[in-house]
Amino acid sequence: MRRLGHISNVDSLVDSAPAHIRREVKAVLQALDKAIAAVQPAKLLHDKITVRGEVFRVGGRRLNLDKFDEVVLLGAGKAALGMAKAILELLGRRIKRGVIVVPYGSNVKMLDCVEVLEAGHPIPDTNGVKAAQHIIELAESCKENTLAVFLLSGGASALIPLPADGVSLEDKIEITNLLMKSGANIHELNTVRKHISAIKGGQLAKALSRSRVVSLILSDVVGDDIATIGSGPTAPDVTTYTDALQILERRGIIDKTPSSILTRLRRGASGEIPETPKPSDNIFKHVTNIVIGGNFDACRAAASFMRRSGYRSMIVSSHLEGEAREVGRAFSSVALSVERYGVPLKRPCAFVIGGETTVSVRGDGVGGRNQELVLAAVEKLADTRKAVLASLGTDGIDGPTDAAGAICSSNTLRQALEAGLNADDYLRHNDSYNFFKKVGGLILTGRTGTNVGDVAILCVGD
Amino acid sequence: MRRLGHISNVDSLVDSAPAHIRREVKAVLQALDKAIAAVQPAKLLHDKITVRGEVFRVGGRRLNLDKFDEVVLLGAGKAALGMAKAILELLGRRIKRGVIVVPYGSNVKMLDCVEVLEAGHPIPDTNGVKAAQHIIELAESCKENTLAVFLLSGGASALIPLPADGVSLEDKIEITNLLMKSGANIHELNTVRKHISAIKGGQLAKALSRSRVVSLILSDVVGDDIATIGSGPTAPDVTTYTDALQILERRGIIDKTPSSILTRLRRGASGEIPETPKPSDNIFKHVTNIVIGGNFDACRAAASFMRRSGYRSMIVSSHLEGEAREVGRAFSSVALSVERYGVPLKRPCAFVIGGETTVSVRGDGVGGRNQELVLAAVEKLADTRKAVLASLGTDGIDGPTDAAGAICSSNTLRQALEAGLNADDYLRHNDSYNFFKKVGGLILTGRTGTNVGDVAILCVGD
Repeated sequence: MRRLGHISNVDSLVDSAPAHIRREVKAVLQALDKAIAAVQPAKLLHDKITVRGEVFRVGGRRLNLDKFDEVVLLGAGKAALGMAKAILELLGRRIKRGVIVVPYGSNVKMLDCVEVLEAGHPIPDTNGVKAAQHIIELAESCKENTLAVFLLSGGASALIPLPADGVSLEDKIEITNLLMKSGANIHELNTVRKHISAIKGGQLAKALSRSRVVSLILSDVVGDDIATIGSGPTAPDVTTYTDALQILERRGIIDKTPSSILTRLRRGASGEIPETPKPSDNIFKHVTNIVIGGNFDACRAAASFMRRSGYRSMIVSSHLEGEAREVGRAFSSVALSVERYGVPLKRPCAFVIGGETTVSVRGDGVGGRNQELVLAAVEKLADTRKAVLASLGTDGIDGPTDAAGAICSSNTLRQALEAGLNADDYLRHNDSYNFFKKVGGLILTGRTGTNVGDVAILCVGD
Repeated sequence: MRRLGHISNVDSLVDSAPAHIRREVKAVLQALDKAIAAVQPAKLLHDKITVRGEVFRVGGRRLNLDKFDEVVLLGAGKAALGMAKAILELLGRRIKRGVIVVPYGSNVKMLDCVEVLEAGHPIPDTNGVKAAQHIIELAESCKENTLAVFLLSGGASALIPLPADGVSLEDKIEITNLLMKSGANIHELNTVRKHISAIKGGQLAKALSRSRVVSLILSDVVGDDIATIGSGPTAPDVTTYTDALQILERRGIIDKTPSSILTRLRRGASGEIPETPKPSDNIFKHVTNIVIGGNFDACRAAASFMRRSGYRSMIVSSHLEGEAREVGRAFSSVALSVERYGVPLKRPCAFVIGGETTVSVRGDGVGGRNQELVLAAVEKLADTRKAVLASLGTDGIDGPTDAAGAICSSNTLRQALEAGLNADDYLRHNDSYNFFKKVGGLILTGRTGTNVGDVAILCVGD
């Protein structure tokens, strides 16, 4: 068998699959591997950036490196290390200093002359605050003739938290929890957070206002909105202090909001403290935000591999959000229409979806959104003859587990019953990890060094 | 404008749509109308059945009417009236007697020599019990040389409830409520109900065991399983009393189960009372169950109309189930991928889904599953340029409202904001009906005389 790059247990997953769907299991796992490979930061940056002599080209922009005294590298996110390595290869010794912030566990202190700091994720911590201060200080030290390259990827919101004056990290964490419990969506969450932060919502761009800024952004956000990815440190913010207050009001949590936050938002709304930088702000004339890759790149690689493997293939959506179990059920229903009516495609065929689902935790089990999506499909796929569904997080980490995701097939329900397991019970307890640990089907990758959300593939064999 | 058959407010919906998406709104509404027209019982029966001289052909079967002394017509369901009319046209005076059961409000007492009874739906009542007794008596009066034609459509489970000996209608209603609240799925619900009924789960076929039986079935069930539609009065039952007891146990409601039901199930499990007829039972040699139409027919008509109207078209699934709001969000996300990446289809294009979603009611608003599905899409469609989404129940009745469903577009969120309405709040209160009543978008049909579940169309203009 072809050696795969990221998924470490392909052989055992293929071997343990029932013979009649082994081909589909293998194709799906290989396609997911291709999806991860396609969004490796190094690959994306080398694809999008060329440096010839002193000319740096990226995203249709052309910068003459001669014009700058120095290049400073800043960055934060789950993919910062891989992105920094690729940029160092491209720009080499032109980079004189820099700092990037990554989750704990990288075991790297320096990359050439770039400091590598570690901080808490997904819960922000004081090391993150220190790292963010370090980034702002470095940014403010940049001059007119500095080219600042900022590497942004998912996870940055938590990795470089910088509470605004008078607000504590604890208050920020508390309001985030209150908002999430109240059902606030990502836009509401970010509107509030940007107005109690000293780095989010374009404020890093403000700190860099004397310099030329190029932000290279790997998107983990559905829709790739640059104001949302990592809370948009170098992107204009269209929201206001008044918006933030209205959200707290509408979500019914204004009475529970920490007073430091309420004071700041009210002072901001009355004009006592400056707004976050708006789209019309002059500072953005010197800023170029470029999304170098996102979920669609991963989906495209997966669909393209399935097509080369002989399956009619289609990306159904790379903008999926919603409750994982519901997405799993809806997606798996497509296999029934394929087998029964030959729609939307005739067999053999494959469907790719991408995005990022969520799990409303009700039970006390262990799992992740991808594993839960797949577990929710088990019952419906039992009514198919020859279907396989797999889903994984491209960062290799699905919930608080050591799995990236899971795979199931037409046979999984039967296998579970034979093992005395009730799939429905595991789903009710949000215990997808233990279900697949017992039945088989966990996909293992370890950290992949990238992060563009989730990819799922449904394959129906002939 | 072309006159439409079923949707009564097309003109006003088209006129009130923003000019740039008027074409899409019109096409989608016309396509939904075609979907309803394609599954009218008369049309389906005339398509599937031919009577030439004394030869009756249906679904590949050939019956010689000469061989029978009489044809008896039985039936129940929301589409029973339309089905009966069509059969009377086809078989005419050969039908000597019969009875069909329909929901209140038909205002018809007799169709030729066929009695029309009315009963409660969706809550069963004593008129339903009497009607079911009447059907069983008529069935038992059929002889060797009788051809019994049974017309089955959605709603029959409630319209002809016949509690088994010793079980009261109240007990049946109570256990149904207990099961539904415990999260039981349709299969679990039916397993229990078939074992406390004297008509469900093949027991009508048993009452007709001396005769030749042809069941003509209009499916409102996702997947068209004949044992599930109307609880399968003429279909073999693979479930047992023991299964039923295990379900009550597993759902944790065995202690609350009415004692009459518990007694019956335990006696059944110990062999004291006979099982429901199983697939191997001889009675089914004389029974032909034919699904004359279902959700896919409606989806196909809708997709085909959209194609003729110039939109690349695709049925994504006619097997959709799940929480309405989640399906709405997932489905609308496809429009974003179309506009941004040209996948799964390039503009202009349309996607059709069918099935039947559910709503977990949390708020105290008014709505239906189709209206809620559409409301949940409003926010996502606001990020599109030119998309329209509509969903309706093919029976014309969406929840406890006078609407069949609703339609929204890229502009609906803006219209709502201008009217001071927060779409999210209405969704949280399950108040989709009042949202669309205020913003516009309710689709009105009245009862359509058919019932094959729901159809939704997403259209992205050029």
